[in-house]
Amino acid sequence: MSLAYTSTHPSAAATGVTAPAGFTAAGVPAGLKSTGKNDVVLVKNLGPQFTAAGVFTSNRVAAAPVHWSKQVLADGRIDAVLLNSGGANACTGPEGFGNTHRSAEYAAELLGISASDVAVASTGLIGVQLPMDKLLPGVKAAAELMADDQNSADAAAAGIMTTDTVPKLVSRLVGPDGSTQVTIGGMAKGAGMLAPALATMLVVLTTDAVLSSDQADTALRAATAMSFDRADSDGCMSTNDTVLLLASGASGTTPDIAEFTAALTDACCELAAKLIEDAEGADHTIAIRTYNAATEADALEVSKAVSRSNLVKTAVFGKDPNWGRVLSEVGTTKAAFEADQLNVSINGVMVCKNGGVGEDRNLVSLEERNVSIEIDLNAGSEEATVLTNDLTHDYVHENSAYSS
Amino acid sequence: MSLAYTSTHPSAAATGVTAPAGFTAAGVPAGLKSTGKNDVVLVKNLGPQFTAAGVFTSNRVAAAPVHWSKQVLADGRIDAVLLNSGGANACTGPEGFGNTHRSAEYAAELLGISASDVAVASTGLIGVQLPMDKLLPGVKAAAELMADDQNSADAAAAGIMTTDTVPKLVSRLVGPDGSTQVTIGGMAKGAGMLAPALATMLVVLTTDAVLSSDQADTALRAATAMSFDRADSDGCMSTNDTVLLLASGASGTTPDIAEFTAALTDACCELAAKLIEDAEGADHTIAIRTYNAATEADALEVSKAVSRSNLVKTAVFGKDPNWGRVLSEVGTTKAAFEADQLNVSINGVMVCKNGGVGEDRNLVSLEERNVSIEIDLNAGSEEATVLTNDLTHDYVHENSAYSS
Repeated sequence: MSLAYTSTHPSAAATGVTAPAGFTAAGVPAGLKSTGKNDVVLVKNLGPQFTAAGVFTSNRVAAAPVHWSKQVLADGRIDAVLLNSGGANACTGPEGFGNTHRSAEYAAELLGISASDVAVASTGLIGVQLPMDKLLPGVKAAAELMADDQNSADAAAAGIMTTDTVPKLVSRLVGPDGSTQVTIGGMAKGAGMLAPALATMLVVLTTDAVLSSDQADTALRAATAMSFDRADSDGCMSTNDTVLLLASGASGTTPDIAEFTAALTDACCELAAKLIEDAEGADHTIAIRTYNAATEADALEVSKAVSRSNLVKTAVFGKDPNWGRVLSEVGTTKAAFEADQLNVSINGVMVCKNGGVGEDRNLVSLEERNVSIEIDLNAGSEEATVLTNDLTHDYVHENSAYSS
Repeated sequence: MSLAYTSTHPSAAATGVTAPAGFTAAGVPAGLKSTGKNDVVLVKNLGPQFTAAGVFTSNRVAAAPVHWSKQVLADGRIDAVLLNSGGANACTGPEGFGNTHRSAEYAAELLGISASDVAVASTGLIGVQLPMDKLLPGVKAAAELMADDQNSADAAAAGIMTTDTVPKLVSRLVGPDGSTQVTIGGMAKGAGMLAPALATMLVVLTTDAVLSSDQADTALRAATAMSFDRADSDGCMSTNDTVLLLASGASGTTPDIAEFTAALTDACCELAAKLIEDAEGADHTIAIRTYNAATEADALEVSKAVSRSNLVKTAVFGKDPNWGRVLSEVGTTKAAFEADQLNVSINGVMVCKNGGVGEDRNLVSLEERNVSIEIDLNAGSEEATVLTNDLTHDYVHENSAYSS
């Protein structure tokens, strides 16, 4: 993944969760958001298959919908997903879990399916009960509007937005030599620097491929490891993060799994880049690439350490190519390297050579939004890139002003 | 350690590194700081013993003086410490190490001791060579001024300041029933939120106790583990952090080691609290106490996780008792707990009970500088407290404006 995002697979004409065959969606305003914008979303798999996989937050204080959806997914099947913005339903106790259960039951009744096949995902304030008197009418309105067109995919993507400024949709075509056999679609929200209590990452991916649940699970885990797991806005982990993959089998085709995984990874990388680029509080988007590492795990550890440094992030905000702060973070890791063999380049200028002063730091321009920090460990041939943002006054302002 | 700092041992009449018998010190302005303030410091142990212990940064990109001082300390003996502000001598390559060596040789020559018994500590900008034409005359001036009075201790404490607004000195008396047998003195700088590239923590502790180097090492490690290791301003680790303990034996007394360790810990806790309280960019000082933990390690892991959350720190800046952000950090740890048995109190108000909404958050006032966050894991009887600061506009401003 890099900021100069280069797609490895073509997009479809349509985009979003209804791009593949076999899916309908809707997004409606139900009054959970004070803005009156869309806040309740349904995505339905029309089959003939209902294969699903999911990746959830590892936060042990997980929200009610996360607990619910893990149960739903236990049999590898999801028929529909109910999503809402305007309330995270986290730290809400038995009443919160009851509300998730009740909303899934209601959606199932309206869609003529079993509640045990309805996943739920929520995003918004922690510690507040969902207003069920608004949510349930919203579910009904959404169920009545469900369609497989672009408008529906757009409405669904808009309905999961919180501090996102733009809806985030994606599509990919999978097939030998670019000929279409299978389509992937998806939508995402979150990872914003603004009000990250709202910035749960919710992602729904859809495909018309014929997949076993094992294949779906393996592909999804591979794709998220290379994309969302390498986008880190502020180092904080949400109680609600959810990534789901639904496969309808409507194409009648089982793709080459390596090819499918590559295309799914490609789609997830595009969504992850869009999430980081839309972090409103940020002035800069920073790609931290560690290369010549002994192992990919080393490269990832170093890139993540640097991406979580408030000192590096404030330096970039101040347009200061402060390589000493980068080196200092590298020094906190267990990666294989010798301190006197480290090189650091910022926007292409090797400001640190062999652990000391390199090229003139005045050659570095940090005026552009996109910033590249490259760390040469001189210890091998592996690499990994992590995307993050700078730390700005807006971040402090928005996160301090959020709930007061 | 807590913010309402309560000393367990009495202070001496004098304070700082010359409070115990057998030490002289000096601090002079040598022009390393553009402000013209003191920036070169010497501390000398007059004996009859020259026992020493040290704790250094675990950052693998350690500065030249750290490498040097570790070598000096290998035999458990330090006769003098040369300290400077105005330059970290980190990421400066062989030339930087040569400068440290040369300054130690010069100090040794002036003081009539061996360079291999002169520890060096530096603080300031990374990646810049020390101006030896200013440093060496400063060493000479300091060597000529060395004395055992309060003025000298004050001048030394001032000479290691960077963004600190006040010098930080301490003293403690050790003896049965409060009668004095042994004295501890000390000085510290750093841990500031402002310009932490400057905010290396340097600490020199002195005592007239008769100690073996093993006793000194054990006592120092126990004291730092309970104090400096539990003060975390912004989660970043300096390339230069150094804590030294020098014992002159001038009292002729070997104290009860448990008692001495308790007094040394007490002194270090006072210095650590002073470091956190002097973080200029901060509006709030936050004590994060985790209690009813299964183990002390669990309690410490939880307190540290919460102390490093930008979301918690910005919420406190915004006077927002956002317990959901606290709970979310607790959920990222491996500590023993059940999510539905967690309680969180902010300034005494239990805003989260049993993992859900507790007392009215409007009862919490965050107007005062000192903030208490208490996390009840309901899993045992151990506890640990970590001190940190809030994340403010001033932090972002000072750290972005620092070197540009």
